[in-house]
Order: sequence, then structure tokens, then C-alpha cells
Amino acid sequence: MRKKVVAGIDIGGMNTRIGLVDQSGEVLTDSNIATSQYPASEEFVSAIYNSIELLLKNPDMPLSELIGIGIGAPCANYHTGCIENAANLPWKYVPLTSMLGVYFPDIPVKVTNDANAVAIAEMIYGDAKNLKDFVVITLGTGLGSGIVANGELIYGHDGFAGEVGHITAVPDGRHCNCGRRGCLETYVSARGIIRTVFELLAVSTKDSVLRNSSFNELTSKDIHAAALNSDAIALEAFRITGEILGRSLADVVSFTSPSVIFIFGGLAEAKDMILAPAKENMEKYLLDCYKNKVQVKPSALGNKDAGIAGGAALIWRDFV
Amino acid sequence: MRKKVVAGIDIGGMNTRIGLVDQSGEVLTDSNIATSQYPASEEFVSAIYNSIELLLKNPDMPLSELIGIGIGAPCANYHTGCIENAANLPWKYVPLTSMLGVYFPDIPVKVTNDANAVAIAEMIYGDAKNLKDFVVITLGTGLGSGIVANGELIYGHDGFAGEVGHITAVPDGRHCNCGRRGCLETYVSARGIIRTVFELLAVSTKDSVLRNSSFNELTSKDIHAAALNSDAIALEAFRITGEILGRSLADVVSFTSPSVIFIFGGLAEAKDMILAPAKENMEKYLLDCYKNKVQVKPSALGNKDAGIAGGAALIWRDFV
Repeated sequence: MRKKVVAGIDIGGMNTRIGLVDQSGEVLTDSNIATSQYPASEEFVSAIYNSIELLLKNPDMPLSELIGIGIGAPCANYHTGCIENAANLPWKYVPLTSMLGVYFPDIPVKVTNDANAVAIAEMIYGDAKNLKDFVVITLGTGLGSGIVANGELIYGHDGFAGEVGHITAVPDGRHCNCGRRGCLETYVSARGIIRTVFELLAVSTKDSVLRNSSFNELTSKDIHAAALNSDAIALEAFRITGEILGRSLADVVSFTSPSVIFIFGGLAEAKDMILAPAKENMEKYLLDCYKNKVQVKPSALGNKDAGIAGGAALIWRDFV
Repeated sequence: MRKKVVAGIDIGGMNTRIGLVDQSGEVLTDSNIATSQYPASEEFVSAIYNSIELLLKNPDMPLSELIGIGIGAPCANYHTGCIENAANLPWKYVPLTSMLGVYFPDIPVKVTNDANAVAIAEMIYGDAKNLKDFVVITLGTGLGSGIVANGELIYGHDGFAGEVGHITAVPDGRHCNCGRRGCLETYVSARGIIRTVFELLAVSTKDSVLRNSSFNELTSKDIHAAALNSDAIALEAFRITGEILGRSLADVVSFTSPSVIFIFGGLAEAKDMILAPAKENMEKYLLDCYKNKVQVKPSALGNKDAGIAGGAALIWRDFV
């Protein structure tokens, strides 16, 4: 019997990762294409098709049957199957599931935004298997979120629910790429913590290795490395980031009262440097009826393959 | 054949209203008991029982069969059937559904918080009949909310979801009864608009009829009456209240992306005095992908009977 596999696809601004995923969430084989090298979406979809066909022919793979394709992408609409107005992708509007469906007419093709895909992966493969009410916060360049209530992902009437990165954390605060001000992701994200470091470098007189990097050079990994080395500015930047995250998580709880909030992505690797102040401040700002009930913890999914496995989970969830 | 009726109960700090409700949401007969006159919850439950029995014997009523009891109450937990730590009720903890179940062992008894009951009523009898994703905001002494997503009310893991009145509207803002600061309901509620009027009376030199009332005397109805009479302070208070509501509604949309936000309760009677600035500011602060999609409108439920009908809707929804 041929082994059933799902093609999981993780579309990012730089790279698009494509893998074949089994029912346990394991990525059996994968490859990579450079998103930005395809200014025409038709060519991009054609390249995805070619990658999947190549992966299926991988001699190291058991004989496989492709049973579906699941995709996580920024600004992707589960209801319509389209990517719409994604700031970091080269195309304004891509009817992705119908375009890929031309190549794969006999199997389901589904797309959702990348944070929702991670939430579904957490539900299928991760630590949310028995949870009906939880939230996933993804900390990447921006801040994404997937909200699950009553055991179902919340898509909203238009397919765009769950933009917690764009709730107002600080009224009239930092300018956001979305054109508004004070959005949570301008503080809590890889780019947000860099901005916080630069604010601290301006305000403080403390010595710091981070004074040697330009804004464009500095990465959140550099800040993490400096913090591990007890750099005072880096540690303070993580503390502030966690504090603002925690304060906003108190608001998140007031909406859907999740039992667990999972934190996923690069910044979450700093673990308690960010999670400890986040938990402390969430508790501080929680309404009494929610106190000491909500767990905040790192996602159980490995960062490396979670995007691919998350996309695939969109299909596998129908087989659970 | 006997007419099927549900007993709908609306528990408030001052009064508890009890009615018999048919499947269309019409309150056929109702009565009233003074909540605060029952310091012992056992006596309160006994009084509810007596009221229901009396209503059923009302000679003006058709011969009726009581098929269930549905209750809306502050701080009520749908999962446990209990009222827990309601600030404006005389009892700390009441296992209401099991206590009433002793009197009515053969029919379902359900309770939820008052704003959730209104949301279900809107779904069963009101303008949300065909909506899968909507939010109800109730403006009374405080601000309550009921959130429906994927066609289901969101209760959260602990039964306490939907406390939009306690999201932080203004960091380090007004003190709230909950012990925290800047909660939305300290600005947007009957009590909130009174506080705003007093702030304006302090800041402004404008003449106003509202300068003749003490804080304890002034009601939101007085402010509405003054606004209808073009009182500058009253009009400005409504504008500010709507503005803060609108800004927070933009955050509400970022969570569950509802197609409609219904505004219910006394303050909503001021209609466009509060709804126009609310809509304008919501649109101003919405993320682009949500703009011009979300309706903000008054609830279709009459204020008078919505509490009773809302409680009853908890039972009727299982018969739709």
C-alpha cells in the first residue's frame, strides 16, 4: 500500500518551503524556492507544482500517494482560497487554491494564514490536542495569531479574524507598516524588539555590544545572543517586550478565555527572558475571574518544520 | 394542546424579572422581585419558584407547558451553572441551576451571563438569525459583551469569555471597580459617560444644565435629555464616549472579525449621538483588510423584554 502524504507549503516573503508530511506531522522530504524570484504568480504556482512532483519522485521516499495540499501564507483567506494584499509578497491578489487546483484537480487544496496554520498544527500534532480554547501567538518579523474557540479556528465572516498583532498596545505609539500607530507588533516581534533596543540605546548611558550595530544590521538573534551574555540593554529589551506582550495577553484572555496561550517563533526561543515578564504582566492585568488559570508556554512545534507541517495540518485535520 | 413556554429570568442588582416566553420571543406574562431583599440565595431561588408557579396560573394565559428555564445573570458561568463573585448581587457563590433544578427536576435549567443571553436572543429572535460571526455590546451600568464565532457563542475554557468591558481602553486610565485601571467600561457605559461629563465640567467653561446635578444624582438619561436639548457638554460627552467605543471596536474586529456589532442597552437609545462617532472611529482605526465591511447598529431587541427573552433563548435555541 502506498503511504498517504500531504504537501505542506509555507509561503514567506523570502522563501517558500515545500514538504511532504505524514499523518504524524513529520516532514519526510522538503525543498525550497525563492519567493521573490517569481514576480508573476503563475510562474510561482508552476514552480510549486514542479517542486511537489520532484519531491514525490525522491528515491529516498517510500511509494507515496498525495492526498491533499495545505498552505500557510501571510494574508491568506481560508474562505476564498486567495492571498490578498500581503505586504511582503510580490503579488497583490493570488487565487492560490484555484490556481494550484488546475495542476491537482483531484485532491483538496486549502490555504490559511500562517499563524492559523500553526494553530491547527498545534491542535493536530502539538500540545493542543485536547484543548477546545487556546490561542497561538507567532513572533516573527511581525506578530501573528490563531484563535481557537469551541474547538474551531476562528476565521470570522471574511476569513481575516485573528489579527492580534494589530490591536492597539500603545495609543498613538510607534508607527506601523499597516499605516496606523501603536499596534502590538510594533513592540512585540523581531522588528519590534530591535526598535526597543534603539529606544534604550538613546535613553540609557549603559554600555552595550548592541551600540556597534546599525538598525539595518541588527537582528533579534543578535539581541538574544547579547542577552545570554548578560548585556544590560538586551536584557532590558526582552523584559520590556515581555511586559507589553503580557499586558496585551490580558486583553486576549478577556475575549476568548483560552486555557493556554502558545508562543511560537524566533523570539520565543529566548524562553523565560520574554515569557517570565509576559506571564507576570498578564497576571497583573488580568481580571480577577481569569487569574491563575491561563498557561503561557512555548509552542510544542519545532520552528524549523512547523510552517510546512502547519500547512499540511489543514488537510490532515479532516482525517483525524 | 398546551402551549409550550420557557421561563426567562433576568437577574439584576436591583430587580429580577421573570417571564413566560413563547418560541417567537414574545413575553406572554411577567413579574418582578427585588433581588436585594433576599440576602440568602435559598430564599431568592424559592421566590423565583413561586413567581414561575404564579405566572403559570395566570388566568389570562393559555394552558401552558413549561419546557425549560433560562437565566441571564451577571458573572454567570454557563459551564458550571453558577453565579460567581458578582459585584452587584448579594451572594458570593450561587449554584443556581442545581438549586432551581430541585424545584424543576424534569426540565432543563440553564444560565449564562446577561450579555451572552442578549447575544443568543439576537440570534434566535433578532437581527442575527443568519449570522455566524457577530458581537453584541451591552451598555448598562457597565459594558458587557457576547461574542459569536462560527455560529457558536464563545464561552472560553472556564465559561467566562467575552469581558470586552475590561479590555484596557486607556493604559493607566480611570480606576475600575474590578481593581484595575483604564477598562473600557470606565469610559463606555452609563457610569462611564457620567464620569466623562464630570471631566468636561471641570475642564470646560461652557454653560450646561448638567452643572446643577451632583455626581450621585446624575443619570445617563439626564445626559441624553440634555443632549437632545443641544447641551454642549452632553453632546461632547456622547461624542467622546462613541469615539472611545469605536477605537476599541477596531480591536474587537481584529480578534473575531464579526460582520455586525450590535449595540444594546440604555446608552444605545442615544442612537447616532453615540453610534456615529463610534462607527467613524472604528473605521479610522481598523486595519485596512477590515475597512467598510463591519456594520455597527442598534440591537433589534426591545430593551424592555430583552433580558427575559434572552434568558429564555438559552432554552429555545435547542428547539430551532
